[in-house]
Amino acid sequence: MKLAILFGGSSFEHEISIVSAITMKKVFKRAELSFIFIDAERQFYLIEPEKMKSNFFSSGGYKKSKKLVLKNGAFSIEGLFGSKAVLFDVLLNLIHGRDGEDGKIASMMEFYAIPFISPRLEASALSYNKLYTKFLAQSLGVKTLTYQHLSKNGERKLVMEYPVIVKPVRLGSSIGVTIVKNDEGLDYALDVAFEFDTDVIIEPFIEGVKEYNQAGTYTREWELSIVEEPHKEEFLDFEKKYMDFSRDSQVLAADIDGQLESKIKDTFKKIYDPLFRGAIIRCDFFVREGEVYLNEINPIPGSMANYLFDDFEGIVERLSQNLPNEQKISIKYDYIHSIQSAKGKA
Amino acid sequence: MKLAILFGGSSFEHEISIVSAITMKKVFKRAELSFIFIDAERQFYLIEPEKMKSNFFSSGGYKKSKKLVLKNGAFSIEGLFGSKAVLFDVLLNLIHGRDGEDGKIASMMEFYAIPFISPRLEASALSYNKLYTKFLAQSLGVKTLTYQHLSKNGERKLVMEYPVIVKPVRLGSSIGVTIVKNDEGLDYALDVAFEFDTDVIIEPFIEGVKEYNQAGTYTREWELSIVEEPHKEEFLDFEKKYMDFSRDSQVLAADIDGQLESKIKDTFKKIYDPLFRGAIIRCDFFVREGEVYLNEINPIPGSMANYLFDDFEGIVERLSQNLPNEQKISIKYDYIHSIQSAKGKA
Repeated sequence: MKLAILFGGSSFEHEISIVSAITMKKVFKRAELSFIFIDAERQFYLIEPEKMKSNFFSSGGYKKSKKLVLKNGAFSIEGLFGSKAVLFDVLLNLIHGRDGEDGKIASMMEFYAIPFISPRLEASALSYNKLYTKFLAQSLGVKTLTYQHLSKNGERKLVMEYPVIVKPVRLGSSIGVTIVKNDEGLDYALDVAFEFDTDVIIEPFIEGVKEYNQAGTYTREWELSIVEEPHKEEFLDFEKKYMDFSRDSQVLAADIDGQLESKIKDTFKKIYDPLFRGAIIRCDFFVREGEVYLNEINPIPGSMANYLFDDFEGIVERLSQNLPNEQKISIKYDYIHSIQSAKGKA
Repeated sequence: MKLAILFGGSSFEHEISIVSAITMKKVFKRAELSFIFIDAERQFYLIEPEKMKSNFFSSGGYKKSKKLVLKNGAFSIEGLFGSKAVLFDVLLNLIHGRDGEDGKIASMMEFYAIPFISPRLEASALSYNKLYTKFLAQSLGVKTLTYQHLSKNGERKLVMEYPVIVKPVRLGSSIGVTIVKNDEGLDYALDVAFEFDTDVIIEPFIEGVKEYNQAGTYTREWELSIVEEPHKEEFLDFEKKYMDFSRDSQVLAADIDGQLESKIKDTFKKIYDPLFRGAIIRCDFFVREGEVYLNEINPIPGSMANYLFDDFEGIVERLSQNLPNEQKISIKYDYIHSIQSAKGKA
């Protein structure tokens, strides 16, 4: 398998995408990897695998790499004597946050007919925004915590009891997230969240709630990871999450009974299918009194949650053979022809 | 104002987008227009204004036009001696259906920093899909008709009374839409709709229900059109709608009282703001017993609903001066620097 890893992007999570991409070098043993980087100015660069070190990006050294132009069917190196395509079988979208998770990259890959592993446009738009994730869950009959939505220019009136957790609706990796225990903290938490986003979502913060993560995909069949009980402090700050994105060794399965495990896996499948076909996602759940609640969908999880799978590389190979196809639309100009005939102009 | 009209696209509504674009030539009196066409293979072409006739496209004559490549900040003509940008102040996305209304074009314009008039990514994803439009309306407290959602591979069990209307969730211009009066008709209607889409929505069909359309935008202030009562037969078939897309003369305002008019305008504003900033949209409403129900959002209405406005060109000019800005994200590599310091590698 020739695999292109797309990473970087104009995103608050740009740096952790670099870390995720570097991790992929260790994770893939058989694949022939290409690395395509999107810098802060949204210029594409082809990065030689041996240059995949974090300081190559932070130092700006990447700017000497070959620039790429995205065209129908290919990323191309443009030269004086024509253009040369970067060759790969499938592209793995590894851009966390904006550009990668919001649906832009999915849109562009679909428009330019490049085979890609990632949530598609609609799946991205719904899962990137935590408010829309609530709509989606509701429509699927999946439980979520109650919530309140506030807008930057709207009223700041809380209608639930403390403690609460305040989150920008469109970000991952805990950026801009604050736990609030009283009125004094609320204004500050909202100011922080509104630095990053025009909209926030507020949910009850439940001390000590059980949290479980399930990753998976559908290839020719379901391929689900172990269920992980993430090790957590009050909650992970960005720097700790950042380190987390470089994980490449397997973790232990959560110690839960078969009934709860089935419930978690069934809920994952309900969310995944068919909206997320073509993607490997991670869903984070809360469990209270035996009931499973969707906390968030990670449409492009850190280092692709590779550490939760037995055979991550095999899954990527099988998925690349079973990607959803865009519907074919044939354009035949029947209406224009018939109108021209009617006008006697045919 | 230098205005680029983007039209065509890989869409079932490709042909009516051509008709809409040709209509724009008559509608704009002051603007300097460029025309950028996307063909069925998703190749961009720069079309000379005098070539804007329907048979130039249906005959394939457009293929001799200059090809364009989309890059950061511009559509460019690539030549032996470098590239030359097509110059314009703002681009009007006039692609109906897939590519234009689903969020792909919005994604690409935002990614490549091209100023554009169109619903943005999230607004597109939610309004292109009639099921998601229901979620959106519900979250805004806007009434819609009850509905049922069926998937191509799911059970075909109707839980509402006839007559009903069956619609593919992702298409406009009445394509694949059927009114069904009994069980015999249902299977056929579903077969037709599933030709076009994996998902359908079924709603009660209400004979003789009052229908009103409201178009509008927000520039520095609200700029709303007259309320139109569309002239309709049972409902418009594609060919009639097609003709409708070439309208360029104003219509009469619906004969309704001030209270209903306010209700319609207020509902429009609730839907529009802030999600649709940057776009000129048309909302189609039903009115029953004085209550306003959202029927559909037309994120890129036929010929931009220009015929509903007094001063359409002025609105486009003002909107182009008041487009929403993408949030700036500055990437400073703070985390990579701090981790490198910690490792002693800085």
